[in-house]
Amino acid sequence: MTHSYATHLSCSKCPEVYPSDRVQQLCMCGAPLLVNYNLRKLAKVLKPDDLLKRSHDLWRYHELLPVQSAKNIISLGEGMTPLLPMKKLGSDMDITHLYMKDEGMAPTGTFKARGAAVGISKANELGVRGLVMPTNGNAGAAWSLYACKAGIQAVIIMPRDAPALIRSEVASAGSHLFIVDGLISDAGKMAATAAVDFHLYDVSTLKEPYRIEGKKTMGFEIAEQLNWETPDVILYPAGGGVGLIAIYKAFKELQNLGWINSRKMPRFVAVQAEGCAPIVKAWEEKKKESEFWPDSRTLAFGINVPKALGDFLVLQAIYETNGCALAVKDEEIIKEQKNIIREEGAFVCPEGAAAFFAARKLRESGWMKEDERVIIINTGMGLKYMNKEEMVQPVLQPGDSIKSLSVLP
Amino acid sequence: MTHSYATHLSCSKCPEVYPSDRVQQLCMCGAPLLVNYNLRKLAKVLKPDDLLKRSHDLWRYHELLPVQSAKNIISLGEGMTPLLPMKKLGSDMDITHLYMKDEGMAPTGTFKARGAAVGISKANELGVRGLVMPTNGNAGAAWSLYACKAGIQAVIIMPRDAPALIRSEVASAGSHLFIVDGLISDAGKMAATAAVDFHLYDVSTLKEPYRIEGKKTMGFEIAEQLNWETPDVILYPAGGGVGLIAIYKAFKELQNLGWINSRKMPRFVAVQAEGCAPIVKAWEEKKKESEFWPDSRTLAFGINVPKALGDFLVLQAIYETNGCALAVKDEEIIKEQKNIIREEGAFVCPEGAAAFFAARKLRESGWMKEDERVIIINTGMGLKYMNKEEMVQPVLQPGDSIKSLSVLP
Repeated sequence: MTHSYATHLSCSKCPEVYPSDRVQQLCMCGAPLLVNYNLRKLAKVLKPDDLLKRSHDLWRYHELLPVQSAKNIISLGEGMTPLLPMKKLGSDMDITHLYMKDEGMAPTGTFKARGAAVGISKANELGVRGLVMPTNGNAGAAWSLYACKAGIQAVIIMPRDAPALIRSEVASAGSHLFIVDGLISDAGKMAATAAVDFHLYDVSTLKEPYRIEGKKTMGFEIAEQLNWETPDVILYPAGGGVGLIAIYKAFKELQNLGWINSRKMPRFVAVQAEGCAPIVKAWEEKKKESEFWPDSRTLAFGINVPKALGDFLVLQAIYETNGCALAVKDEEIIKEQKNIIREEGAFVCPEGAAAFFAARKLRESGWMKEDERVIIINTGMGLKYMNKEEMVQPVLQPGDSIKSLSVLP
Repeated sequence: MTHSYATHLSCSKCPEVYPSDRVQQLCMCGAPLLVNYNLRKLAKVLKPDDLLKRSHDLWRYHELLPVQSAKNIISLGEGMTPLLPMKKLGSDMDITHLYMKDEGMAPTGTFKARGAAVGISKANELGVRGLVMPTNGNAGAAWSLYACKAGIQAVIIMPRDAPALIRSEVASAGSHLFIVDGLISDAGKMAATAAVDFHLYDVSTLKEPYRIEGKKTMGFEIAEQLNWETPDVILYPAGGGVGLIAIYKAFKELQNLGWINSRKMPRFVAVQAEGCAPIVKAWEEKKKESEFWPDSRTLAFGINVPKALGDFLVLQAIYETNGCALAVKDEEIIKEQKNIIREEGAFVCPEGAAAFFAARKLRESGWMKEDERVIIINTGMGLKYMNKEEMVQPVLQPGDSIKSLSVLP
């Protein structure tokens, strides 16, 4: 039985193709490379029900992933996160079928585990010994830990403003960690230089072709969890935008396999913060690519990406699916995050909260209908963004009793 | 189709029985109540393969859980955490079949989500409006968030030394949070008083009968993930010990259902810290109950429980399965935690690391054989225990390049 049906890499912009049995970065033309599969052949031998007895992780889709041999897989149990109905919040927003794909339940607490698992597994298969990555935090944490397991050395470059807890997480993994007094775009330039200087694999967003394959599994899971029905709308908080590109790729592959309706595609929504909204601006101006967003700033640190390498692929997915892009304010993010905790008990990250608020706005504007099936990608745990708060709670001594409780009977 | 096969509650010490359709706390004799099921009837209608198409969460075992109606379930997608082979560490420890049940991948990042999901769902079914809980942190966080979703008010009492991040998590959920300048035993006394004063449901460990049912699902999952084979040894970091009692209960129920070998039971190992080892002491002295451990202290905060209400049940599970109990030092925990990250990329919590170190010791002593199948319960994410570290990493300015990397080629 063939483990992977991957055949080769092809450029996302020009007609160039590359073999996938050796380390590749970008196409010679400077655009990202994408993995191709022999879906026609796979369609003949694999059916959705064949998955039922498989492991409850993303490797259940191994034929649609690039790792050629199971022995090269580096896994921490990633994938098959829950697709949770959000009834109270949906009722509040007037969206009857609102679901959260909760990526907080992942190794290292974010969806970055998917890209790291598949990216590191493939790097392992290709014999990589050292890599370099610029990151706003969570990707660095995920890649550091998977690199540990694979015995690959990781050099991580992170902006000074990245959440302190995540920085500590990267340090714990024993990665070579550098802090830059700037943005992820500055870190990216340093990573490119370091890759050359120290002969490292540059695993910046979309500069290697396999991270997107890991994130693609979010799309497979959503389809499987909906019993191979296609949702109407998918909202995704877009920084680099890999997840959105990846989920779109997943749905196209499932259509080509004949596993889902070939005429229905979800409308993709890219959600950004008002302080960093290059893709929203490009979409509003009907452009194919975004421009660098100067002085970008948002508390949703994961989407503070002033210019994404794959911006044109994000925009393409939006245009081809009649989707849209919109930006939300930091205050709206904080308010919605609190609201989600109190209503649904889900402590989502700021980026996830941004997507929830966007859903609220799109329903209010009538862009989404009441009975449409709407999926929100919560990209990680809210806890990872938390600072140690000042202790304001009452302190009691042993033997004390609670004198009063304000709102209880 | 009957949703739950629960029939009634029975005392864990005396012959008393109670109905499960109203709020119950302890038995009149002071001992915990346990849930009983009609397993004979269930065995006729449910087979292991019936689970295959069910949801990937702990509610796939709903017949063996106490919630009578699906509409009362409060879920955040808990359960079905991975059972990960730990090959590098196993090789290092000379244990060929070493697995980690990784409970870090749960809502709120710990195994406490299981108890909270089932406990809150049942409380919801019984019409509870307010509850009180003493906690070392993680249980408080889990119960707070599930209580939010259920619309139940939660009063949480937590020692001052509990991890700051977890305290913030509880505060975020909007619970009524009190800090006590003492231990969980002091918090427990306050909770008991508050329960009476404010007519609250006391959900202290084992003072309500349903938390254990949630944790029981760890046992079901281990068996299912091993294709209904029984492992040889299960190591569990024991504070209150509910998880150990619960997994033992799960294996007995599976035996009675005829789903696993009725003559083989795993040997249960309770792991404690040397600074708080009442159950280890009792086991070494062949006693049936433990004594209060004075001046208890350990960095593995979740197992800093000087006297557990269910100690006699933990000891019973150990005696009946030819298990054992042993204590490890805080330095050993720290060392093993770092080792697990570097070898396996898994950032386990200190309690989980304690269980790993215990496995190492038990293999060295010959108590476990090389080819035995050994399961370690990692009860949560290491990240939750982390303090913001001092920034010691090099800070670069935009445009700088990395001058040297110590160990890379």
